[in-house]
Amino acid sequence: MKKNTTLYLDDLQVGQRFTSETYTIHGSRIKEYAAEFDPQPFHLDDAAAEASVFRGLAASGWHTAAVTMRLLVGSVPLAGGIVDAGGEISWPQPTRPGDTLHVESEILDIRLSHSKPDRGIVTLRGTTFNQNSEAVYLLTAKLVVPTRAKNSLGKLAAHRA
Amino acid sequence: MKKNTTLYLDDLQVGQRFTSETYTIHGSRIKEYAAEFDPQPFHLDDAAAEASVFRGLAASGWHTAAVTMRLLVGSVPLAGGIVDAGGEISWPQPTRPGDTLHVESEILDIRLSHSKPDRGIVTLRGTTFNQNSEAVYLLTAKLVVPTRAKNSLGKLAAHRA
Repeated sequence: MKKNTTLYLDDLQVGQRFTSETYTIHGSRIKEYAAEFDPQPFHLDDAAAEASVFRGLAASGWHTAAVTMRLLVGSVPLAGGIVDAGGEISWPQPTRPGDTLHVESEILDIRLSHSKPDRGIVTLRGTTFNQNSEAVYLLTAKLVVPTRAKNSLGKLAAHRA
Repeated sequence: MKKNTTLYLDDLQVGQRFTSETYTIHGSRIKEYAAEFDPQPFHLDDAAAEASVFRGLAASGWHTAAVTMRLLVGSVPLAGGIVDAGGEISWPQPTRPGDTLHVESEILDIRLSHSKPDRGIVTLRGTTFNQNSEAVYLLTAKLVVPTRAKNSLGKLAAHRA
């Protein structure tokens, strides 16, 4: 998949996959992020983190989620951008200082909107891996994706069935 | 609820509610956050945002999620902190520059872990409101909460039923 291709709903298929670039999270940024948005000792202080359930400094889960969004924006070139209506998230294990993350994502479902036929809802599952191929974050998102044209419903009719 | 009370699993009840402080999101921070984590035109540029599905500058949903976490950390005083194993999220409508947010949260469910009796899983539903009492973010989170002591299972046995 060329990175700069712009994909409309018409261009997507269930099973289609995307792989992101990598992103390294530094310990200093973990602490800065936590100070602003998730000020808890296990995200801010090495000694406190050692004594916590995380057994060492861990990035805020919302920091991992944010980095994942950045990697998805760069790797899933949807027309109209990545517009997320909601979804499910989980953190199987923490992101650690110096971890290098990447995201692998796959289209699970495509549905044309009945009320607004110029768009559809695409279910995308993303898994964020660290450099040891361990999953640190799972996201299943409902994305709003425009059709190529309001009247290009022929190909999409199949998704309604 | 006093803000500095520390609550163990034993202290929690289904239906218990918490209300956060307020937090104002400024337009400049919306753009900075987006530049780092969600670099899409409708989060970065006023004119592009006007022409987008958002019809005006909107905060990244992950920025709203992060602010919500900050407000939860300050308003839900769980022993061991707020340790989120995962959950469901949605954004009913965008957060706008200058919006003042607060979070109202409620305990929906409490379950003692069978495999690890020193902790339980608490389902917390949070709703983030703007200054017009419109919900901008919904979170249903599974939180890991320690019991007051490993052998304090008497009171908790009721939660198993």
